Amino acid sequence: MILKIAAALGLAMSMALPAHAQFAKPEDAIKYRQSALFVMAQNFGRVAAMASGKAPYDAKVAAESAEVAAYMSKLPWAGFTPQSDLGDTKAKPEIWSNRAKFDDLGKKVQAELDKLAVAAKAGNLDAIKPAVGAVGKACKNCHDDFRAK
Amino acid sequence: MILKIAAALGLAMSMALPAHAQFAKPEDAIKYRQSALFVMAQNFGRVAAMASGKAPYDAKVAAESAEVAAYMSKLPWAGFTPQSDLGDTKAKPEIWSNRAKFDDLGKKVQAELDKLAVAAKAGNLDAIKPAVGAVGKACKNCHDDFRAK
Repeated sequence: MILKIAAALGLAMSMALPAHAQFAKPEDAIKYRQSALFVMAQNFGRVAAMASGKAPYDAKVAAESAEVAAYMSKLPWAGFTPQSDLGDTKAKPEIWSNRAKFDDLGKKVQAELDKLAVAAKAGNLDAIKPAVGAVGKACKNCHDDFRAK
Repeated sequence: MILKIAAALGLAMSMALPAHAQFAKPEDAIKYRQSALFVMAQNFGRVAAMASGKAPYDAKVAAESAEVAAYMSKLPWAGFTPQSDLGDTKAKPEIWSNRAKFDDLGKKVQAELDKLAVAAKAGNLDAIKPAVGAVGKACKNCHDDFRAK
């Protein structure tokens, strides 16, 4: 009974999620997630360039950029609304048919970016490097299954 | 003397801003600011719709959306880099020729969105309404001078 109530609540909660993600039209939802992911990727890329030695390490910029990337990683998911699987998007239909897996992989990206933000805030390049690698892997894992080439 | 030091620090801080805004190419800078402004506007619009009665007031959604809008309002400015006045943008050349005024108006938008976030977090629709109006006015003030039709 308790499990049933929890399940009902869980369902209600996930049904309620789109409430703060109400978009006027599917195109807005697509543009929203793409925008959030772009801002995330730009900030992550800045830290990744430092980790790989392509850019000089700047502790302050790394900390700020990693923090923004981590924050941004919370936002795109609300944009994967029903009816937004068509249009100008690389999102595969599997996102909607296998939402649990997609959400898990999305949470993994967020978790790894949170870890990177901690490492960058500590100003430790040796900790930033593996954290960048873990973020990259988490991104790739999701793209492999859920983003069209 | 203290004021001079503060001014010098303030200058140093604002001069340091573009450092964490290094974009591979001007198009990235344009896309970055447009993306950040779009995510900001979507979240602000959700609260504005509640303030105007076009959407039912949901305190939790309003608080979350206003917080995201306030956070997003810190980001676009880094994207107004040199050489990013051309291309697919409505940004007017005056942004670069009258940067101090542009920056002031941008800071006003951020300040009004911060106030809106406070009102929304308090869950007070009567305080949200004028705060939404003030944000709208701050957006318009900047667009009037610095965004092409």
